Amino acid sequence: MENIRPIIWEEGSLKLLDQRVLPHQYTYLELNAIRDCADAIRNMVVRGAPAIGITAAYAIVLGAKQHYFTDKEQWKKSLQTDLEYLAQARPTAVNLFWAIEQMQYEIDNLSSRNPIDALLSRAKEIHAQDIQANKTMGELGASLIADSLEASSHCAVLTHCNAGALATGGYGTALGVIRSAWKKGCLSHVYADETRPWLQGSRLTAWEMVEENIPVSLLVEGAASHIMQYSHSTDKPIKWVVVGSDRIASNGDVANKIGTFGLAILAKYHGIKFMVVAPTTTIDMNIASGADIPIEQRDAQEVLSCAQSEVAATGAMAENPAFDVTPAHLVDAIVTEKGVVLKPDLEKMKKLFY
Amino acid sequence: MENIRPIIWEEGSLKLLDQRVLPHQYTYLELNAIRDCADAIRNMVVRGAPAIGITAAYAIVLGAKQHYFTDKEQWKKSLQTDLEYLAQARPTAVNLFWAIEQMQYEIDNLSSRNPIDALLSRAKEIHAQDIQANKTMGELGASLIADSLEASSHCAVLTHCNAGALATGGYGTALGVIRSAWKKGCLSHVYADETRPWLQGSRLTAWEMVEENIPVSLLVEGAASHIMQYSHSTDKPIKWVVVGSDRIASNGDVANKIGTFGLAILAKYHGIKFMVVAPTTTIDMNIASGADIPIEQRDAQEVLSCAQSEVAATGAMAENPAFDVTPAHLVDAIVTEKGVVLKPDLEKMKKLFY
Repeated sequence: MENIRPIIWEEGSLKLLDQRVLPHQYTYLELNAIRDCADAIRNMVVRGAPAIGITAAYAIVLGAKQHYFTDKEQWKKSLQTDLEYLAQARPTAVNLFWAIEQMQYEIDNLSSRNPIDALLSRAKEIHAQDIQANKTMGELGASLIADSLEASSHCAVLTHCNAGALATGGYGTALGVIRSAWKKGCLSHVYADETRPWLQGSRLTAWEMVEENIPVSLLVEGAASHIMQYSHSTDKPIKWVVVGSDRIASNGDVANKIGTFGLAILAKYHGIKFMVVAPTTTIDMNIASGADIPIEQRDAQEVLSCAQSEVAATGAMAENPAFDVTPAHLVDAIVTEKGVVLKPDLEKMKKLFY
Repeated sequence: MENIRPIIWEEGSLKLLDQRVLPHQYTYLELNAIRDCADAIRNMVVRGAPAIGITAAYAIVLGAKQHYFTDKEQWKKSLQTDLEYLAQARPTAVNLFWAIEQMQYEIDNLSSRNPIDALLSRAKEIHAQDIQANKTMGELGASLIADSLEASSHCAVLTHCNAGALATGGYGTALGVIRSAWKKGCLSHVYADETRPWLQGSRLTAWEMVEENIPVSLLVEGAASHIMQYSHSTDKPIKWVVVGSDRIASNGDVANKIGTFGLAILAKYHGIKFMVVAPTTTIDMNIASGADIPIEQRDAQEVLSCAQSEVAATGAMAENPAFDVTPAHLVDAIVTEKGVVLKPDLEKMKKLFY
């Protein structure tokens, strides 16, 4: 189903599919205040870099409404502290800052007599463009996979976390490529890391794949190396790792869900290609390398417990970085809506923005 | 505490610390029948290759008692089907088969007028020798770590699963080295993979470390690459990965808990050394390489759920290999009670058994 809708604007409210309780509950939360949207991002009601950006855009519409109807003269000024609050929701995904910038530009250049309508229209455009970008990337990435195979053969891919419809405006980045590859007939199987500690693979990616009738097998992250090797003795050899991204530096270094960096090293060892799928809104040309990307450290409790159940010995500490940075030299392809960058470096990344 | 006792022989019964409910419950199961012991191994009441071997030795004493007091003439014959049942409990750890062979030899060569006492005495010897082997390996492995560092400096290590007192007769293989290194002052911190799906890192290794007052930080397997890199910008750089083993082939290939193979690749990438700690009872000189080691596939449900809670989308499948094989070329040292094998190969492994 291409119709998974994580973010819906309806009757002047923002509705977010609560991704914390999927797949066992399918519930939308209705939000009417910008700060509630920021909290929903922080608390992972909605996650995934493009989805965070879209949510932020709609959140700003809600914030503008709140302040505009309170004080039509000073509303822009009073909105600013809310924008700062929103910007602090999560540090790694650049799409959040990109969306705030886009909406700020709109606010600074409002000509319409109805500023709220103008802002809403820009937010809807950001949303629609993201879905369109996903479909374009889906085609480009699926062609990369097809072209890497012998004619009319197919392969398996391994994905990590959830870079699906749920992580975007719809359709998905990595899962968009997987959807398109499945339609094209060049995909036989999806292996999905369960993705501790939040289990987005088990809860979200597996759910999206089951909804599409694409065969999906979950594995614990520790099994990735064994399965990469083992799959080549089956009729479902893993030929590509396909992941999304939260921020890509100008040199092609890729921040993504914790575990991605390790997968890229394993893929190289096993001769498997590594594809990153992300719209250009995820690329941050202002930073030289991944070393400049802030890595969110989340609560140790997320690691010390599992599925809401305390598991670790009392007294144990935990490290819980939410993201890692895969160096560009481990990346075979970055697929964007503006084209594919093979073996990324600064020069090739710059060309995307000519 | 060096006195964690996973396996106790007391008043003619075998008592196993139930490792499935640690660290929140500390309960011994009392076993009096060989088949119950086999089931306890299969169901992971007790796990870890050396501990499985010791349990099997005591189980055979219980089996011998059952059959001997029923029929003093035919007891050896009737014990055979129970031995076969025991041998099928788990396929990967070679210590199970080694212990059965040892006890079979004892049975075939009984001279004592009291065969049960003779068998019990051999089982106790196997148990005691394992603890002694662990202490010897602890010293050897700790010296390897100390010698790899500049004088009076220290480092962190990363371990996987539980190769501790709980996985052995007591003291531990990998955790034995860690205990000895801590006493020696060359260890500053332990990083422990949580080790999905059974979470032996969170539940067992963290518990053993907390009991010893050795600082331990848990991480999800996906964080290993990031933490390996990041630790080198702190005062707790990871210089060694230290793990146990379930079976080592004659060429030095190492079967161990799923996730070990990936860690070895990551360690190589990050310039971190990789140490395997295992008694010679874990070495299987009858097989040429890791390709000959049977890999246990466990129930998909262990991956589809987490801490007894169903997490995955209905309809998703799962791969659940319990072990993987790390090729010898990724192993820097195999530490046994008979000595250390650096950069293992067949010739060096043979020398252990001269």
